[in-house]
Amino acid sequence: MHFAWLCCLGLVQGGKVLVVPADGSHWLSMKILVKELYHRGHEILVLVPETSSVIHGSESYKTEVYPVPYTKEELYQKFDRLEDDVFRKSSRMTELHNNVQLFIDYTSIQVNGCERVLNNQSLMTRLRKEVFDLVLTDPVLPCSSILANVFSIPTVYFLRGLLCDLDLQASQCPSPPSYVPAYFSGNTDIMTFPQRVTNMAMSFMQPYVCKMTFRHFDDLVSRYLENKTTYKDLLSHGAVWLLRYDFTFEWPRPLMPNMVSIGGINCAKKAPLPADLEEFVNGPGEDGFIIFTLGSMLHNMPEEKAKQFFDVLWRYTGWLPQNDLLGPTPRLKSSSPMVEPTVSTRVSVMLCPFPLFGDQLDNVHRMVRNMDVYLNEYSLFTLQLWYFLSYKEKVVELSQVHLDRPVEPLDTAVFWTEFVMRHKGAAHLRVSAHDLNWIQYHSLDVIGFLIIILLTVLFVTVKCCLFCTRKCCRHGAAKRKSE
Amino acid sequence: MHFAWLCCLGLVQGGKVLVVPADGSHWLSMKILVKELYHRGHEILVLVPETSSVIHGSESYKTEVYPVPYTKEELYQKFDRLEDDVFRKSSRMTELHNNVQLFIDYTSIQVNGCERVLNNQSLMTRLRKEVFDLVLTDPVLPCSSILANVFSIPTVYFLRGLLCDLDLQASQCPSPPSYVPAYFSGNTDIMTFPQRVTNMAMSFMQPYVCKMTFRHFDDLVSRYLENKTTYKDLLSHGAVWLLRYDFTFEWPRPLMPNMVSIGGINCAKKAPLPADLEEFVNGPGEDGFIIFTLGSMLHNMPEEKAKQFFDVLWRYTGWLPQNDLLGPTPRLKSSSPMVEPTVSTRVSVMLCPFPLFGDQLDNVHRMVRNMDVYLNEYSLFTLQLWYFLSYKEKVVELSQVHLDRPVEPLDTAVFWTEFVMRHKGAAHLRVSAHDLNWIQYHSLDVIGFLIIILLTVLFVTVKCCLFCTRKCCRHGAAKRKSE
Repeated sequence: MHFAWLCCLGLVQGGKVLVVPADGSHWLSMKILVKELYHRGHEILVLVPETSSVIHGSESYKTEVYPVPYTKEELYQKFDRLEDDVFRKSSRMTELHNNVQLFIDYTSIQVNGCERVLNNQSLMTRLRKEVFDLVLTDPVLPCSSILANVFSIPTVYFLRGLLCDLDLQASQCPSPPSYVPAYFSGNTDIMTFPQRVTNMAMSFMQPYVCKMTFRHFDDLVSRYLENKTTYKDLLSHGAVWLLRYDFTFEWPRPLMPNMVSIGGINCAKKAPLPADLEEFVNGPGEDGFIIFTLGSMLHNMPEEKAKQFFDVLWRYTGWLPQNDLLGPTPRLKSSSPMVEPTVSTRVSVMLCPFPLFGDQLDNVHRMVRNMDVYLNEYSLFTLQLWYFLSYKEKVVELSQVHLDRPVEPLDTAVFWTEFVMRHKGAAHLRVSAHDLNWIQYHSLDVIGFLIIILLTVLFVTVKCCLFCTRKCCRHGAAKRKSE
Repeated sequence: MHFAWLCCLGLVQGGKVLVVPADGSHWLSMKILVKELYHRGHEILVLVPETSSVIHGSESYKTEVYPVPYTKEELYQKFDRLEDDVFRKSSRMTELHNNVQLFIDYTSIQVNGCERVLNNQSLMTRLRKEVFDLVLTDPVLPCSSILANVFSIPTVYFLRGLLCDLDLQASQCPSPPSYVPAYFSGNTDIMTFPQRVTNMAMSFMQPYVCKMTFRHFDDLVSRYLENKTTYKDLLSHGAVWLLRYDFTFEWPRPLMPNMVSIGGINCAKKAPLPADLEEFVNGPGEDGFIIFTLGSMLHNMPEEKAKQFFDVLWRYTGWLPQNDLLGPTPRLKSSSPMVEPTVSTRVSVMLCPFPLFGDQLDNVHRMVRNMDVYLNEYSLFTLQLWYFLSYKEKVVELSQVHLDRPVEPLDTAVFWTEFVMRHKGAAHLRVSAHDLNWIQYHSLDVIGFLIIILLTVLFVTVKCCLFCTRKCCRHGAAKRKSE
C-alpha cells in the first residue's frame, strides 16, 4: 500500500479553511470533517449565525458569530406547521408542495441573515484579510458560495443532496429519467410504464420547481454578483462535491468526475454511551431494543400515532447518540431473531425509517427496494417493522458491501478537501458542459441544422426527380404525338 | 488513515483468478496487476495462445498454452499493411476505415483461436473444474467474456478503451456529443459549431461502426450463447471496469459507478536500467536526452521520415524500459531548458506522442489541449517537439495533479478485483439501464405517449370550441332570421 498523497500533505499544512455550515443535523455530519481537518494541521474559521442551537465553539476551530435579523423562536416557528402536516396523510403533490413551502419559509429568513453578513463591511474586510485557501460549505444556503465568489476561493460542497436535484443540475450530471428516479417521485430505478411517465413528467417539472424553490437564493445572488447569475450557475463553480451517500443505499446512476462519495462518514467513530443509556441498553432482558428516531427537527407527535409504538427506545426530541448505540461492541443481546448483532461485520441493527419530510420518503424507498420489503402505509408500520427486521441477512450483506471500501469516507473527504487546497481547485475535473447553454448541451442547434440539411437534400432530390420524370413524360408524349 | 478493506482481505486469500489477456503491449500493463494479485496470495492461471510473443511463464502465475489455427507470422503479417499506411497522410475517414480494417484483420484470426478454446472439451472441462472466483480480462478479445458467462464467474475488465467507444456503450455511460468527443473524431471537449456537427454525426455513426467492427465477435457470441446476444450485451455484465486513464489526460466526462480510474498503473514501479542504457543515459553531456517510441507494434519507418529525427534515443522496434528511463532518480541532467527532472514531484520528462494508429491520434489531441500546444503536421514534428518541451511548467503541474491521489492505481486495481471476488460481483454498482431497450432508455415511448395525450387534449379542446362557436353562430343566425 503506497500513499502517494501523504508526501504532499506538507504543501497545505497550515491551510486556512472558511467553514459555512447549515444549522441542525447538517452540521453534526460536517463537524466530523472539520475536526479532522484541524487534527491534520489546518486553521479553521466557522461562520455561525447567532441563533444557532447546535454550532458551538470548540478548541478545534475558531467561530465568528454574526448577528441576524430574526430570533431563534422565529426560525423554529417555521417548523410548527411541519409538525402539523407530516402526520397527516396527503397526496404526493401536496407533500411536494408542503416540502417546497417549508424549505422556502425556513431558508428565506436565513437568506436575510446571509445578506447581513454580505453587508457587514467590517466582517467582510476581516474575512478578506484572512486569505482563506478554501470554503467548505453545505450548499443548502447560498451565503458561502457568494463569499467564495467574492473572495475568489475554491469551494468544496458537503451534502446529502439538494431539493429538486439542484445539485445534479448544477454539476451537469446526466440523469436519464428512464431509470434515475426524480426527486420526490417515489419511484425506484426499476419502473413500470406509468411510473416512467410520472418520472418523466416530474423530471420536466424539476427546473420549474427549482426556480420556485430557490427564487430567493437567485435574488440574493443576482444582487451581489453579475446580473442574471442564478444560484445554480454559482453552484456549478464548486471544485468538488462530497456526497454523503454510496451505492449500497442509492440507486446506481451516472456520476461526474468531481463527485466523491463519502457515504457513512457520519457513522465513523464510536464514543462511550452516557450512563443512563448504557444502563438501559444493558438492562431489559434478552430481546435487545429498537431505536426509534424522527430526526433532529421534530418535537411533537399525535398521541394516536405514538400509541402504535411500544417496547421502543423513544427519541423524538433532542439528539440521540445513535451511532454509539449501534457500535461494534456486542451490546445488543443476540438470542432474539429480531435484532442480532453481527459483530465481526460491524453491523448491529438497521434503522427503519418512518418517512416524514424532505428526502426521507425517497430514502425509505431506496431502503425498501434494497431490502426487498415494502412499507408504505403508516398504519401498518408497527407490523411491518417486525417483518422488516426479519431481513437481517440482507442487512448484513449490504453492510458488508458498504463497509468494504479502499479508504474510509472521512479520509476520502479530507483527501479531496486538501487536494482542492493544494491545487487551488480541481480544474481538471470540471466538464466543459458548464460552458454550453441548454440548447447547445442537448445539441438541439446541431440536430436542427442536420434536419434542415436533410430536408434540403430531400427537397432538391424530389424536385430533380419530378423534373426528370416530367421531361421524360413530355418527351414520350411528343414522340407518341409525332408517331 | 483507516483501511477498512484490509480487514476483509482474509475472505479472498487463495482466490482463484482466470486471466485472459490480450497479447502485445496490453499484456505489459496487465502483468503488473497479475503479479500484485499473486503477491497478495491469489492463485492465477493465464490463458496464452501458442503464438504469443510477450506472455511468458512466470513464478507468479501458471499458464495454460492453447493451440491456435494460425502461425505467429500470419498474425504479424496483418501489421505489414499498417506500416505502409501509417506514415502516409490520409483523410480522417480513410484513417478510421484503415483502423477498423486493421482491427478486424488482426482480431478475426484471434477469434478463430478463441473458438478453438471453446471447442477444446478437455481444456474446458479442466477450466470448469478449477472453480475460478473471477475472470480478469482485456475486452479487446471476446473469449474471456464468453468463458465467464459459460462458467458463471464475475468479470473485471482491464483496458484503456475500445474501438468506437464500445466500452462506453456497453457500460451505459452517457456521452453527450456536445462536449464528449466521439472516438476518432479528433475533437476536444470544447468544440465550435462545425466540430459539434461532425461530432454528432460521428456519434450517430458509432453504433454502425461498432456493428461492423465487432461483427465477428457478435457471430462467435451468438453461436456459443443465447441467440441474438451481441458482444456488447455480454460486455454489459462486467462487474467492474478498470480504466487505464485519469482526468489529467482525459476529457472530464460522466462516469458510471462501476468504472474505476487506474491511470498511471503502468508507470508505478521503477527498475534499474540495463547496463547499455545506463551508460547511454549517464553519457552524453549536459543536455539530457529524448525518448522516441512508436509503441510496441511497428518495426519499420520510411527513411525520409526517419531522417527528421536526430540526437534522439531511438526505439522503434522491440521493448524499451521507458518507465525506468523516466524514473525519479536525478538521472537526466538538469542544466538544459529542454529536459529538467523535477525529482521532488517525480516528473522527469514528458513523452511527445507521434500519432500513428488506433487511439494514438485521440491521445495526442488530449495531450495537446492539456498542454496548450498544437502539433498536427507530421512534417513539423521535430520543430514542434522543441516548442512542446518548453511547456515544462505545465507538464510539472499536470504531473503533480496526476500523482496526487488517495490510493495508488495498482492498489485501487487490486482492491476492486478483490472486492468483486469477496462479493461475487458488484451488483450494487450495476445501473438498471441495462434492463431497458433503446426506446425505453431514451424514454421515446413515454415521450410518444405524452405527445398523443397532448394532441388528444388539443384536438378535443379545438373540437369543443368549434362546436360551441358553431352553435353560437347558428343560434345568432336563427335569431337574426326570426327578427
